[in-house]
Amino acid sequence: MWILRLNMADRTYCLEEVPESLRNLGGRGVTSSIVHAEVPPLCHPLGPNNKLVFAPGIVTGTAAPSSGRISAGAKSPLTGGIKESNAGSSWGQHLAALQVKALVVEGQPSEKGHWVAHLTWDVPAGRPRVTFEPASEYVGKDLYEVFPALYKRYGAKVAVAGCGLAGEFGYANAGIVYNDMKDGPTRYSGRGGLGSVLASRGLKFIVIDALGAPGVTIADSSRFEQGRKMLVDALREHAITKPKGGLNTYGTAILINILNEAGGLPTRNFSSGRFEGAASTAGEAIFEGNKQRLGRELYNHACSPGCIIQCSNTWHRPDGSEHVSCVEYESSWALGANCGIDSLDDIAELIRLCNAYGLDTIETGGTLGVAMEAGVIPFGDGAAAIRLVQEMGQGTPLGRLLGSGTETVGRVYGVTRVPTVKGQSMPAYEPRAVKGIGITYATSTMGADHTAGYTIAPEILGVSGKLDPLSPEGKAALSRAFQATTAFIDSTGHCLFIAFAILDIASGFEGMVEECNGVLGTSWTNDDVVRIGAEILKKERAFNEAAGIGKEKDRMPEFMKYEPLPPHNQVFDVPDVALDSVYAEF
Amino acid sequence: MWILRLNMADRTYCLEEVPESLRNLGGRGVTSSIVHAEVPPLCHPLGPNNKLVFAPGIVTGTAAPSSGRISAGAKSPLTGGIKESNAGSSWGQHLAALQVKALVVEGQPSEKGHWVAHLTWDVPAGRPRVTFEPASEYVGKDLYEVFPALYKRYGAKVAVAGCGLAGEFGYANAGIVYNDMKDGPTRYSGRGGLGSVLASRGLKFIVIDALGAPGVTIADSSRFEQGRKMLVDALREHAITKPKGGLNTYGTAILINILNEAGGLPTRNFSSGRFEGAASTAGEAIFEGNKQRLGRELYNHACSPGCIIQCSNTWHRPDGSEHVSCVEYESSWALGANCGIDSLDDIAELIRLCNAYGLDTIETGGTLGVAMEAGVIPFGDGAAAIRLVQEMGQGTPLGRLLGSGTETVGRVYGVTRVPTVKGQSMPAYEPRAVKGIGITYATSTMGADHTAGYTIAPEILGVSGKLDPLSPEGKAALSRAFQATTAFIDSTGHCLFIAFAILDIASGFEGMVEECNGVLGTSWTNDDVVRIGAEILKKERAFNEAAGIGKEKDRMPEFMKYEPLPPHNQVFDVPDVALDSVYAEF
Repeated sequence: MWILRLNMADRTYCLEEVPESLRNLGGRGVTSSIVHAEVPPLCHPLGPNNKLVFAPGIVTGTAAPSSGRISAGAKSPLTGGIKESNAGSSWGQHLAALQVKALVVEGQPSEKGHWVAHLTWDVPAGRPRVTFEPASEYVGKDLYEVFPALYKRYGAKVAVAGCGLAGEFGYANAGIVYNDMKDGPTRYSGRGGLGSVLASRGLKFIVIDALGAPGVTIADSSRFEQGRKMLVDALREHAITKPKGGLNTYGTAILINILNEAGGLPTRNFSSGRFEGAASTAGEAIFEGNKQRLGRELYNHACSPGCIIQCSNTWHRPDGSEHVSCVEYESSWALGANCGIDSLDDIAELIRLCNAYGLDTIETGGTLGVAMEAGVIPFGDGAAAIRLVQEMGQGTPLGRLLGSGTETVGRVYGVTRVPTVKGQSMPAYEPRAVKGIGITYATSTMGADHTAGYTIAPEILGVSGKLDPLSPEGKAALSRAFQATTAFIDSTGHCLFIAFAILDIASGFEGMVEECNGVLGTSWTNDDVVRIGAEILKKERAFNEAAGIGKEKDRMPEFMKYEPLPPHNQVFDVPDVALDSVYAEF
Repeated sequence: MWILRLNMADRTYCLEEVPESLRNLGGRGVTSSIVHAEVPPLCHPLGPNNKLVFAPGIVTGTAAPSSGRISAGAKSPLTGGIKESNAGSSWGQHLAALQVKALVVEGQPSEKGHWVAHLTWDVPAGRPRVTFEPASEYVGKDLYEVFPALYKRYGAKVAVAGCGLAGEFGYANAGIVYNDMKDGPTRYSGRGGLGSVLASRGLKFIVIDALGAPGVTIADSSRFEQGRKMLVDALREHAITKPKGGLNTYGTAILINILNEAGGLPTRNFSSGRFEGAASTAGEAIFEGNKQRLGRELYNHACSPGCIIQCSNTWHRPDGSEHVSCVEYESSWALGANCGIDSLDDIAELIRLCNAYGLDTIETGGTLGVAMEAGVIPFGDGAAAIRLVQEMGQGTPLGRLLGSGTETVGRVYGVTRVPTVKGQSMPAYEPRAVKGIGITYATSTMGADHTAGYTIAPEILGVSGKLDPLSPEGKAALSRAFQATTAFIDSTGHCLFIAFAILDIASGFEGMVEECNGVLGTSWTNDDVVRIGAEILKKERAFNEAAGIGKEKDRMPEFMKYEPLPPHNQVFDVPDVALDSVYAEF
């Protein structure tokens, strides 16, 4: 395995051996370790001293189920802290096939420029090779136009990562885009503005051709295979992850009705926990709408090769043509309930625009919600929302402002109801109605992030027990355990959705650990999971503290402490001492 | 003396006795003590829990020379930390005459509204009285129109404080405006966005009619008189502060040529320390230009009754009519050299617009510089700069963005050369060319602020010795001493410009202390000055730390560490340990 460094100051690259400290890490463990070790915490995120690190997970590129995740990490332009944002795409699998443990993009050209880094396998030399090619023909364009052009130029078998207009403009809400299974620009390391970190180094796309590459080395194949089978069995058995189960049928948007029922679906910029139009934006409505428009039932598809959960959906126009993929729960909510919009066609168009420009749908929806609160456009006006997102693609002054994210728009318009933590927009779970996820939002090193410690599993879904979502009791310890376990899962390269199955089915959990042991030759037990996860979190936390993001930033926005949320009329009542305990006790 | 509280939630008021802890404080000492004690550090600056505190200095309202300062304090929308911003105006003297030690504006109406608080002296009751009157007729208008209307309504003898359009829009760059000697809207607590804190409480103006009010009680008149005379003598003797001396002749803009010569005049968004057009924007050019246009020499005037330094100038149009007052060094630089603009007529118009809308000229110039760097308009284009400031008054999307200040504009446009500390734009001294002032910018509780510890005195002006501006040696201790002394001076109600005289003339320093002893009945010696100042700073620091602004924020922006500044080609090379020592050693 290699550490591959691209120095964009002079467009050179070098290969380094993997240091012992990174040998048994992958994904988030690798990105956060390198950012912690090499990036000055007080650097400007778009300046020459930030670095963008890509790392496939430990088992990414193997036959492990649902393990096609790629982690991207850097100092975030959105939060000012460390960021890891992972996505499912064949791109990470291609990178792993080149035996690259970490791809580090560093340095900055003195003149603004746009380049493609083309990674291939140098068969005679037995190592990866990089060439840099001008990318100006792809600049200023819709990613739905650009991706086919890239595939035309580099061949049908390549994988593509890059940024869109949002990154070119330097938006704090600019994701890194990866190809999906149909070579479309729809898979995202969405959160934290990493697309702008890429663009600020003069890099527009990273194209990987893994032809002839050796693939991932597995230290103990039989151990790996045994683990893989245990995990596959668990995923195929669990109601949420099994074929034609909840996720495969309705997608992640199955959660819309569930959270709405629980009074925890943030509505009209977090002014209510229930949306009267929820049902028409839910996974069930997507499934039924597609059935009506296509004349047949459509189950969901994989985001990357080898995923057996297959939760990615597609929304179709009235004429049956594809409108967009995919309408996730988070996207449907952010651009739906949070904006008071109840039309799936409007929501689909908003998502399509986010994909076209390279924007995070959660941050975009959060931003529109605050803009609506400020009176820029009315709540519920889908056509006006579409026009605002189009302005983001055009780079008008208003578009640039919106591209800077929710907190900045709140600041510019003097709004006090701004649902962010550490500068990042909250996802689709109301912390006043689901206290544990609020603790995760408040304390995560990532800013408000549901995936950092998804306590929704026990608080709402009854996975690994069932807890009262309105009670703060015991939730700090719960969030801590989930955050540590998640940091481990994010390092394996598995999709976080394996958590449903492995938390309920012990052999599935063991299978995940055994897969890692098989690849690495380690002898980890279940007990190592939280330990390894906590070590990663401690590095992230240390980075943030040195960047000036200490425990005073582990707090909910003030309005959630004095505005009771309908329908439960609860405020966020988790005491500060409980919030502080989450990281103090690692 | 009273603590007068205006509760804007229901437009009531109450009078409290002054607690012992505030008895011997004034100005900044009072505002920072109350903000520290009563404002939750993590509150939203524009939300219901912030408070805006006004406090005249200890000797404000007496015959002490140059003592008409009023301090305004709150949690700042610009920096997120504590803010004290003082101005010279008869308004503070009127407030002192009502025997109000602190006016605390608190609470927030549930419905947006605009009110005038009318403060008078209730002669029979022997205490201040407040009435609240609708202010809607003054909303959305130029302050040059509104002030005459207020004087027409409330009488020629009143004093006025309030906010302009900038505050109504909630800009982080919205100052609090006070009347000048001609009842114009030209005196400002400019920094930190306090105008928006006022407006967010539904308060548009505070009009004071001190008719019949008893004035300031002086405990020991002869001691006061003795001190006063010593200070007057020092001010009349020192070259900088004497009549027809530097400040009285050329105004503060006398510094333009001096700093340009020293290579420390930030030019075109802090990309150089020398501006080829400096001379035509300097105090000498103002004096000569006025002479030419008026046909006579024009010396400067006082900003408030009883000032004997009299540094406020006026700029006139070619036809001899008044264009604006006043063209300060900071304003001339921010809207001049920092934007590459060398026309005093353009600069005057930009200042006039800032006064009309209620904007801080320093933050406005910093913002324009970064917008120019981002390519929004070209450097040096005065007409385009005027159009941008007009947009700030109109509240267009771009105008609102610009109203949010330099750091936010830098963020929205992805600019890495953003000259701010703790979110506040740097004033007119380049920290790479004058290291001590850089330490003040970095470590001050206020964000980048020259008035917080004006080491320019010894580093550039040769006041209290002469130090090498390029050397970082000993500058941490220097900044610490200046910051503490300044906190004391800001509490007395004296203009900071007395510092030139009192640092060079020992009897002047003693006079300042004796004036305070005379008013309060205390027995302070010179040694108490730094002690009292340090106590104020420690409260401010504690507030900031609880607001999440710790020592990691006591840093220069990163570009100043790697971009050498012409002409000296120096970077900011003060080590972090020296920066940390400033507050660690109080």
